[in-house]
This record gives sequence, structure tokens and C-alpha cells, in this order.
Amino acid sequence: MKNIAMRITYDGTNYHGWQRQKNGITVQQVVEDALSALLGKPVQVTGCSRTDAGVHALDYVLNFYADTNIPVEKFPYALNYRLPDDISALEAWEVDGKFHARFSAAGKRYIYQIWNGRIRSPFVRKYSWYLPYRLDRAAMVKAAPCFEGTHDFAGFMAAGGDQKTTVRTVRHCRVSLDAEQPERLSVAVEADAFLYNMVRIIAGTLADVGLGKIAAEELPEIIQSCDRTRGGITAPPEGLFLKKVYFNPEDEGR
Amino acid sequence: MKNIAMRITYDGTNYHGWQRQKNGITVQQVVEDALSALLGKPVQVTGCSRTDAGVHALDYVLNFYADTNIPVEKFPYALNYRLPDDISALEAWEVDGKFHARFSAAGKRYIYQIWNGRIRSPFVRKYSWYLPYRLDRAAMVKAAPCFEGTHDFAGFMAAGGDQKTTVRTVRHCRVSLDAEQPERLSVAVEADAFLYNMVRIIAGTLADVGLGKIAAEELPEIIQSCDRTRGGITAPPEGLFLKKVYFNPEDEGR
Repeated sequence: MKNIAMRITYDGTNYHGWQRQKNGITVQQVVEDALSALLGKPVQVTGCSRTDAGVHALDYVLNFYADTNIPVEKFPYALNYRLPDDISALEAWEVDGKFHARFSAAGKRYIYQIWNGRIRSPFVRKYSWYLPYRLDRAAMVKAAPCFEGTHDFAGFMAAGGDQKTTVRTVRHCRVSLDAEQPERLSVAVEADAFLYNMVRIIAGTLADVGLGKIAAEELPEIIQSCDRTRGGITAPPEGLFLKKVYFNPEDEGR
Repeated sequence: MKNIAMRITYDGTNYHGWQRQKNGITVQQVVEDALSALLGKPVQVTGCSRTDAGVHALDYVLNFYADTNIPVEKFPYALNYRLPDDISALEAWEVDGKFHARFSAAGKRYIYQIWNGRIRSPFVRKYSWYLPYRLDRAAMVKAAPCFEGTHDFAGFMAAGGDQKTTVRTVRHCRVSLDAEQPERLSVAVEADAFLYNMVRIIAGTLADVGLGKIAAEELPEIIQSCDRTRGGITAPPEGLFLKKVYFNPEDEGR
């Protein structure tokens, strides 16, 4: 029995998130069905993260156990014939039997995209938050690093998580602008682990800074307060992309 | 009666092209319906180009006649409330009564996007031609300018056009690579006017150069032959974007 890790990418627009559920089609279900058809027996996959409905992944990692003669590196090509065109397998490799896509993850990076123009772009409508208001971008750029460091992020969490602690270490939180597309703002957030909806609440709070509702100087105190009502709204899912999952090299098996 | 020009952008994925027809929903019909609802009377619009089903527009120009008190520059905002989110009005301005979006156009620029990787990207599948073969990119870069100049492009035209002459002047034809996304190739083509499917046949022919089926050195002779069978296939519509329409300043009225 091999333990196989695989990187996939998906457009989450038409899915009820990652995790298999009764009331809608999910990425996990589609991937499991394709793998099961390929291997001729039921396969269960373990994902690195339970992304919400409408959230995208540029580089998602999963693992599954299989007894197969297919060379592991050929899996993505064999699987892509059976996957719809909004999900693509990118790479597969064999990992140690103990590797677990979720529990072995040592960190993740997300990108949150904002489209800040008076007019919505038809081409990014499913891939960014349309925010047609004047934003103080310099204030947002200045505010973002306030989230960096080890903090109790209890105020930046939606109900529904199953964590033991709400302390997380944010390694990187920056807002960047795009010289070629002035409407585009990106928020990059990397942490050892995330609380439920944490990136979307950080994005919504940075939008409040841009809108002048929150001053950048207030942010450290707002974080410290652990009070969900002090931050901004939970930004909509379509702007969120899982960009990268990090593993310790010894766990990743390569 | 004012003659109003308007710039719009649209994702053509879900439309049967620009031009109103009986057998499918088109961009012209949706824009006319929205304008008619806004103005309270039937409006006919004239488009700059009959884009095909699945073709996109970053910057399309149309004009229409209206007797209205709405300030012309407010039209895009009023209209966007009534347009679906895959079509956006960008700008409107008053033009001379003789301005005609199609006949007054002095040139157009198109971009044709190719996704050249073994694995399809879920995010560009509707916005590029997926070409999972090894391409000689240097040969394509070298070949593209062969299309520049005044030539009889009869061999780069699909049946169905209504032109009097098949001579066109291509001002610019270049293939460019993207350092950040190595899978992405762009073909930019600008001409005084285009024959039916001309850009898509040029893109298909440049792909044949990349695939080694046609040598860059053969291209001038292939163009001169006026023989459609010598060029490449008509590349699929989803990679094509109308990028810009040019008017003589005196015709454009600003």
C-alpha cells in the first residue's frame, strides 16, 4: 500500500467547498470519484484544508492510500482525463506512510484578491471581491503587517472551527498593488495554521482600514481585544485562493 | 437626438457572439434590452465588430441614437445596474451624428492567448487555447512579424465575410512570452481591418510554426499563395480578445 501525495488546483466557483457533504457537489467528492474510477476501487482522500464554497486553490495538497501499479508520477495525467476542466491534478509523489495532508502541514499561504474600481470587470468577477469605493491604499499597505507575529486571533475567527487554541503565528501579511492593473489589490497571508474564515476576516478588516472605518494604528489593539465585533466583515469567498501549503521536508518525503 | 458612443467589455463565454440572432442569446441583444429598459423605448445599437461565439472583448465600442436627459457620461453606471455581470459598460460620450462604430473604425487590435503547458489551468480554460505540446517559442516569436505589412490575406479568411477586397494592412503582429507565467503565450495583432476569422487563423498558423509543421521562412510565401489550405487551423474562439478599437480623432468626437 502506497501513501501518495498529490498537488491539485481548482476553480471553486461551482463547488460547495472541499469537503464531501450531502447537500452539494464538492471538490473532494469529484476527486475521489475520479480516483476510484481510475483505480477500480473506492478511494478516500485526505485534504490539507476545508476550503469553503466558492474559494479557489492554486496549489492544494491531498493524500490517499492505494495499491497500484500505475507509476506515481503518471497519476496526474491519468486522472486529468477523468476530472472536469475546473479541477486539474498537477503532480503526485510517494510519501511516508505517516504523511497526512492536513496534520503534516507546517504552514499555508493564501492570496485574497480585491477588485477596487467603479466598474466591475467581467473577467475577474468570480476571482475577486468587487469593492467599488475609494480606498486609502497606503493605509492598507501600512496596516497589513500589524497582523504579523504570534497573536491570539480569537477575534478573527468565525464560529465552526474545532481548534484547541486560537493562537496562530502569521509569518507574512502584506497588501500589494499591481502597476499594470490599478484596480487590483492583493492581500497575501502566510501562517503556521489558520482559524476558520481568518483570511477573509483579515481581508474584510483591511478593507475597513481602506474605507477609513478603522485606523491602522488601532489594529494591534483590535487584535488584542479578541472581539469579533471590532474587525471588519468576512470578505466574500470568491476573492480567496489557497496559494501554497508548506510541509517539513522530512514529512513531505522529497 | 444624440449619437452616443460607448465602450463596453464582456466575457463572451456564455454568448452566441455579438450580433443579434434568433438561435441564441447575444451580447448585442442583452445590451439593447438593457438600454431599451433604461430609456423606455426600443434602442438599436451598432457594434464595431461581429465577434464570434465565445470570443471576448476587453474594450468594444458601439453607438446608438437616443433622445434623453440622462447625462451621457452617466450612462455606463445607469446601464451596469441592468447588465449581467459578464458585460460591463466602461464609458460613454457624445459623437458626431455621422459616427458609426463599425465604419468609422480606423483599426483594431486583438490579443490571442495560448496556454502552453502539459496541464490545463482551471483559471484560464475559458480565456485561452490549451495547447499541451512542446512549442518552439523562438520560432513563433521570429515568425509573427512576417504578417506585418500590406498583403492580400485571402488565405487567412474563413468563408462568410462580405468584404470587397481581401487586402489588409497589419501594423503589428508579435508573439510575447510571460516571465511570471511560462505557460502563457500572447499573440497581438493590429490591423486597419480584419477578414473573417483572420486573427484565429494567424494564431493557428503560428501554432503550426511552434509545432514545427511550418518553418518561419515559409510564411511570406504561404501568405502570398492566398491558399487557405497552406495555413494552420482556425484557433478556438476562447483565446481571442478584442483589445482596442481605433478611430480617427475627428470621427471619434473627442
